[in-house]
Amino acid sequence: MSAGGRISGGGLFALFALGAAGGLIGDMCHVVSGTTVYLEDPLPYVWRSQLWFPLMVGGGTAALGWIRVRFGPPAEGAGAGIGEVVSMVAAVVGLYALTALVRGEPGEVAVVIVLAAAALICARFARSGFDLLCGALAAVVGMTTEAVMAAVGAFEYASDVPQVAGAATWLLGLYMAYGVVVARLGVALAERLGR
Amino acid sequence: MSAGGRISGGGLFALFALGAAGGLIGDMCHVVSGTTVYLEDPLPYVWRSQLWFPLMVGGGTAALGWIRVRFGPPAEGAGAGIGEVVSMVAAVVGLYALTALVRGEPGEVAVVIVLAAAALICARFARSGFDLLCGALAAVVGMTTEAVMAAVGAFEYASDVPQVAGAATWLLGLYMAYGVVVARLGVALAERLGR
Amino acid sequence: MSAGGRISGGGLFALFALGAAGGLIGDMCHVVSGTTVYLEDPLPYVWRSQLWFPLMVGGGTAALGWIRVRFGPPAEGAGAGIGEVVSMVAAVVGLYALTALVRGEPGEVAVVIVLAAAALICARFARSGFDLLCGALAAVVGMTTEAVMAAVGAFEYASDVPQVAGAATWLLGLYMAYGVVVARLGVALAERLGR
Repeated sequence: MSAGGRISGGGLFALFALGAAGGLIGDMCHVVSGTTVYLEDPLPYVWRSQLWFPLMVGGGTAALGWIRVRFGPPAEGAGAGIGEVVSMVAAVVGLYALTALVRGEPGEVAVVIVLAAAALICARFARSGFDLLCGALAAVVGMTTEAVMAAVGAFEYASDVPQVAGAATWLLGLYMAYGVVVARLGVALAERLGR
Repeated sequence: MSAGGRISGGGLFALFALGAAGGLIGDMCHVVSGTTVYLEDPLPYVWRSQLWFPLMVGGGTAALGWIRVRFGPPAEGAGAGIGEVVSMVAAVVGLYALTALVRGEPGEVAVVIVLAAAALICARFARSGFDLLCGALAAVVGMTTEAVMAAVGAFEYASDVPQVAGAATWLLGLYMAYGVVVARLGVALAERLGR
Repeated sequence: MSAGGRISGGGLFALFALGAAGGLIGDMCHVVSGTTVYLEDPLPYVWRSQLWFPLMVGGGTAALGWIRVRFGPPAEGAGAGIGEVVSMVAAVVGLYALTALVRGEPGEVAVVIVLAAAALICARFARSGFDLLCGALAAVVGMTTEAVMAAVGAFEYASDVPQVAGAATWLLGLYMAYGVVVARLGVALAERLGR
């Protein structure tokens, strides 16, 4: 069966705006806590972020929601109510802030608590295997992108942050939870075609 | 339709006692972490708090529960079971302790994680718009009261705690979550009249 | 009615392995954060733990699951789905990591936040009074065992960790949450006899 859904232009813009805003809040937490440092600033800053950062997070959020709806099976339920949308966004933004809060704690403890919180978010909000697949996709693409950006010297994680190839280890959990939630938001915004 | 509910004297006393006890636990966390300091001690101390503190929190809790039941619509469900009551109280006391735990972290990160946790609590436990209205009422009255008490020199927040007019910024989330939970507890304790 | 359930040998082994693995992760958090120190190392280390540690936690986990199923009433539901199992394990491992994360914070604040989180876990996952009884059993046996092991000089908690008879005070919450979750896992793995 073709999944056959699509998100309207307005829906994609909403995902873009939500992703950009959430990214700015989370990146601010990383910058003020010294978790990350921008090494190059070819573009103007927006709050604490280089302009490319919210654009990339917003674009990735819209793209991931589009992928979920275009290729995944329709959700069994009616989407998400306002309370659940608030919960999902607050959970991911709170997890983002948690990754900044654990700066200065032993790296292993930071990784365990962030992954545990991410697992709780994924288990609570994923409604289908495809939502989890979107989480895995976000983790692979996100960590690869961060590793590349770190390798080219755009920014770096503080040396006391546990890392894999220049990307913080706990990003695995943060991107998984983010991807699951964006998948659910995409479904909530989708219009089913041909019904 | 008139809301028409009331809470018995015993119910109001239960709210007073719960509010006073929770306030004492939370204020103890603030005092031992250096988040707040009492500047005047005209009254005896109860644990780590000046006597007026538990009386105000207890009185405010009883008053807010009374307001919810008197003016708000009846709850659609049968109230809250013991498990949910435990969850609601633990969530607010835990959030109170979190505001002490983040002492020493960058203020912006502290604000983001407390507001995110508060949003999760509100979304999880609010059953009606009136519950959220009680949360907003608690936030406005609570922050105003704290700003006045700080202005008259009764106590102060540490200088590294992010503040608005002498009241910690993250109190917005703590009072919102508190108000929503007290509203639910009020409904759980209410007797409907004229049925 | 006799409870009449049993867990197969494979089920008991699964509980043992899960308990041992979770114990190793949590104990690693305690060791790297300096929360605990091994004072004697008569046995080889497994990761950061003396060999007896994962054996005891694994054995206790299998025993507690067996007790729940053998003596407790059958669960009313069909057990736990994969999502709930992931949530339960992540909640307890995350709580374990939280007890390491609060190292260095005022002891009273650490105790309040750990007990509040434990209460949320117990209220969320306990399905019967017997699940809570298993939590209480784990707390009594666990804290007694730790107090004895500390008394004989096998390990010790750091002097700035709040303690009762050599065992950290917040262990009360950690063992309660652990016991409730192990009880639920036992039921999920049980085979009902004579049906």
